[in-house]
Amino acid sequence: MTQSHPNEHRWPGVTIAVLGGDEREQEIARLATLTGANVRAFGFPWPSCGIDGVDLVDSAEAACRDADFVLMPIPLPQTDGSIFSTEKIVPRAELLSLLKTPANIITGVSDDGMRTAAESLSIGVHEYEHDQSLMLLRGPAIVEAALKTIIENTRITIHMASIGVVGQGNIGSLLARTLIALGARVTVAARNPIQRAAAYAAGAETVTIDELASAAKNLDMILSTVPAPIVTPAVIDELPPTALVMDLSAPPGGVDLDYAKSTGRPAIWARALGRRAPITVGGSQWSGISKIIDTILREQKT
Amino acid sequence: MTQSHPNEHRWPGVTIAVLGGDEREQEIARLATLTGANVRAFGFPWPSCGIDGVDLVDSAEAACRDADFVLMPIPLPQTDGSIFSTEKIVPRAELLSLLKTPANIITGVSDDGMRTAAESLSIGVHEYEHDQSLMLLRGPAIVEAALKTIIENTRITIHMASIGVVGQGNIGSLLARTLIALGARVTVAARNPIQRAAAYAAGAETVTIDELASAAKNLDMILSTVPAPIVTPAVIDELPPTALVMDLSAPPGGVDLDYAKSTGRPAIWARALGRRAPITVGGSQWSGISKIIDTILREQKT
Amino acid sequence: MTQSHPNEHRWPGVTIAVLGGDEREQEIARLATLTGANVRAFGFPWPSCGIDGVDLVDSAEAACRDADFVLMPIPLPQTDGSIFSTEKIVPRAELLSLLKTPANIITGVSDDGMRTAAESLSIGVHEYEHDQSLMLLRGPAIVEAALKTIIENTRITIHMASIGVVGQGNIGSLLARTLIALGARVTVAARNPIQRAAAYAAGAETVTIDELASAAKNLDMILSTVPAPIVTPAVIDELPPTALVMDLSAPPGGVDLDYAKSTGRPAIWARALGRRAPITVGGSQWSGISKIIDTILREQKT
Amino acid sequence: MTQSHPNEHRWPGVTIAVLGGDEREQEIARLATLTGANVRAFGFPWPSCGIDGVDLVDSAEAACRDADFVLMPIPLPQTDGSIFSTEKIVPRAELLSLLKTPANIITGVSDDGMRTAAESLSIGVHEYEHDQSLMLLRGPAIVEAALKTIIENTRITIHMASIGVVGQGNIGSLLARTLIALGARVTVAARNPIQRAAAYAAGAETVTIDELASAAKNLDMILSTVPAPIVTPAVIDELPPTALVMDLSAPPGGVDLDYAKSTGRPAIWARALGRRAPITVGGSQWSGISKIIDTILREQKT
Repeated sequence: MTQSHPNEHRWPGVTIAVLGGDEREQEIARLATLTGANVRAFGFPWPSCGIDGVDLVDSAEAACRDADFVLMPIPLPQTDGSIFSTEKIVPRAELLSLLKTPANIITGVSDDGMRTAAESLSIGVHEYEHDQSLMLLRGPAIVEAALKTIIENTRITIHMASIGVVGQGNIGSLLARTLIALGARVTVAARNPIQRAAAYAAGAETVTIDELASAAKNLDMILSTVPAPIVTPAVIDELPPTALVMDLSAPPGGVDLDYAKSTGRPAIWARALGRRAPITVGGSQWSGISKIIDTILREQKT
Repeated sequence: MTQSHPNEHRWPGVTIAVLGGDEREQEIARLATLTGANVRAFGFPWPSCGIDGVDLVDSAEAACRDADFVLMPIPLPQTDGSIFSTEKIVPRAELLSLLKTPANIITGVSDDGMRTAAESLSIGVHEYEHDQSLMLLRGPAIVEAALKTIIENTRITIHMASIGVVGQGNIGSLLARTLIALGARVTVAARNPIQRAAAYAAGAETVTIDELASAAKNLDMILSTVPAPIVTPAVIDELPPTALVMDLSAPPGGVDLDYAKSTGRPAIWARALGRRAPITVGGSQWSGISKIIDTILREQKT
Repeated sequence: MTQSHPNEHRWPGVTIAVLGGDEREQEIARLATLTGANVRAFGFPWPSCGIDGVDLVDSAEAACRDADFVLMPIPLPQTDGSIFSTEKIVPRAELLSLLKTPANIITGVSDDGMRTAAESLSIGVHEYEHDQSLMLLRGPAIVEAALKTIIENTRITIHMASIGVVGQGNIGSLLARTLIALGARVTVAARNPIQRAAAYAAGAETVTIDELASAAKNLDMILSTVPAPIVTPAVIDELPPTALVMDLSAPPGGVDLDYAKSTGRPAIWARALGRRAPITVGGSQWSGISKIIDTILREQKT
Repeated sequence: MTQSHPNEHRWPGVTIAVLGGDEREQEIARLATLTGANVRAFGFPWPSCGIDGVDLVDSAEAACRDADFVLMPIPLPQTDGSIFSTEKIVPRAELLSLLKTPANIITGVSDDGMRTAAESLSIGVHEYEHDQSLMLLRGPAIVEAALKTIIENTRITIHMASIGVVGQGNIGSLLARTLIALGARVTVAARNPIQRAAAYAAGAETVTIDELASAAKNLDMILSTVPAPIVTPAVIDELPPTALVMDLSAPPGGVDLDYAKSTGRPAIWARALGRRAPITVGGSQWSGISKIIDTILREQKT
């Protein structure tokens, strides 16, 4: 069975609005109800069988009215301030003023407009996208989504393929180890010698960023996890003509995919990897969200 | 780089017809040209950029005329005798009589009609689908295709999931080991105590077929590789209500998928796994095909 | 926790003599008492704290008198018929005639003298050394013992070392997979193409026996699991001058260790690997022994 | 083959003294000669076949006279200031004044006396023990030495054993991953939630330090990598009576081994793990040492 999420928390009388998101928010809302809280949902895909104990409401306003907490999703809001959701939601003063006092927003990341509006209303804003432990807990889901994308876009096996992995942060290092476990011959390119040493200990060959172009000629595919221009035309030109070029990094990305395509190589931006395994990942995110709520509620009591 | 296929063979003056198939036949045809043979293609998906040195012809007849060898694909012919191909090809006496004398058919499997026609014309028929070493070489491709299907059809990660694998033949044992490498908790069900012992040594829990129903209640998914009725309604009923039920076996399959669907559980027949990684797998198949051709040519010389 | 050994068997009134052996027999004797049987011990290392419920007796005769079953260890008896034990025990008619009628010997392997004596007394002889499932269950213990021997005898890490593994039977294939999991680059040499294909699927490079000498020049160590002369002087001469040469096979072994030593290379016969992890392995052996006893007792009842 | 150490450095005319150490210093001295430097050795185990190009001298004074660099080993000097060596060497002003001007000491760690003496003579002191990338490169060697110690001190297999690993620094995390790869069920105890999340992603169960005592009852062995009192009598008392208790941390260690022994449990301090695989590890250390020397020489030129 997957990681268990015992809900040690008991929050009867607390109202939580879940605004926006994707399939992960279904699991987050479901777990939230297990605390005894009132949970309202708006703006994420609603399962045909509903979610036990969660009220689906018909507007962001209905969700927020007198709520103690608003949960918003991980992706960065658009430039117009609207959050990632199935219907347009712009969390500004008009909407947030409907919340109870005191109230708190718990979100992956916030933008300036959200923070300004919240501050004017004395509403707390708590971000968890940069919580490294949550990122690590989501790691296997993201890597499995990347495996699926690789398998869909290659005509050779991962097993025994020569694969370059650029970057050795949380995702890059887990990706490299997973590919090795599947039988790939992995070459890691990383700027940081500590990361290269860790990749060596994990069974990878390692190169510096400067050495990447000369290593490229032996790679069947190159996967970048770094949002910086490392997989440049100079690197791409050295790859075999059929090598897969894939960017796993967040926008704006780090790979010159247009150039790669112009050379005839398959070039893919692996997007939305975070949506893989929404039950597992929603559960991980809830473990972080629930700790934040719990801390706030304890402080309010004292 | 992937497994290399040095073509030590030199067969100038030999004509090879590649009839039917899928993307694997593109690689087989390409590798065949490297021997110096004349290679003609008909009835498999043709890449927009062509295949260097291979002649795409417009009928099975044009492909077979005066050819020394006919290659046909792995899947079993349909009941009307037509082989797996993009256009209808029925290899009977009318078509086969166009071949040179002597000639040989190399095919995954044959049916009675093909064998009878070939025998009447003194054409040899050589099957390789049941070559266990070729099946093992194709194993990683098949398992990777299965991984993709699992990832597409689950809302939890393979990592830390409890997965039942039924059967420990070539594919079942490689699948179990691969899932363990990805962090799954694997329970193997197999009839043969030697296979169960091997699965234990590989890190799996093991149960007999009789014990499968009682083990089922803790499984997040069950994957069957056995074309026999082992994952029965009695087993399915014990699975958690959201557990994935997947059949990886060849037709007629071994899982009661209709029953699984009727209970609301996601139920998938993982088909066409053999088409994953056509370059790797085509190369493996060519290594078997080329050995057969080589043996025939040596015998003809003596 | 390690593999559990629930003793579903209940054999009150049955007397079992455990003769000879090593630390594994301590666990076998202990597990035997849990069935309710009377258990007597002679000829294996006795733990200072004793074994609950087991009678340590002072002669083989005292152990055998009126016993229903005699357990003897896995190693082949010496040429004089004496079994592997801390004191000399030769199971011939004089000793075996003390057993109850009917009686049964359960032993790893028997020799002619034991079988002749038993037959003359109508005593059954049951061997389990060649039970492949028991061998597989013991596999991890044997491979861990081999790892210890490798680590003791090398000045480089297994991680990233180039290691040749000769043979892909039960132990060779598990050894190769384990070394790969530890980060080694493994080249498997095996005569059988099916075994080579399985080794390829497990992540190894593969060579035929004929190709071993030319592959040897890149190996940091070579480990043979085959009791046949494959690692010959011609192969040894190609190894780097400091490469470890190790024979894991049963006597008479398959590696010319004397030649390897004469060239200055470290050369080791990894003996007694079967004694590693006596609790785990004794438990596995007991699972086989207890099934044999159970079958005999059921047949006697009918 | 093991990690290559191409000596891109060319230092003719430079004199390097290698003082003290163990088998690693044999490899360090050998690699140092490949730069064209003069290399003198004293105070470490001398191989019977010598080391090509290295001068074995008969005193620390002979080694230091007019040398540009002195290399000293990783272990902390004794309280009397003597370094880890086969003969007593105390690097104080009397000895260090024999060096050329300018000169530099490169050592794992230094003590106050060494630093004071060096400062008075304007000799540079460069430590590398705390270089995290070197520690990571040595990781596989240390973990393999730990595996050997575990295998020597247990009567069950690592495979399928329940193993607690305390601490998730460089060594703890690599140890946990390696044990998982060998088939163990690993429970990681770590204070830091980020480290616990990384251990979860690597396939371990995780507990906080507070939860360790209650997790202990299911552990076949507990391995601590933390030099702090975490494996206390309260934890040890919860372990099964035969569980192995092992401390892998540097002195003063973190496990109450005396208490563990008093309860009858096997209790081991795994010492000198750093000496495993001296060629691999000496090579890693040389990669760090040579970069330091190279930087110093470049600065001297400018």
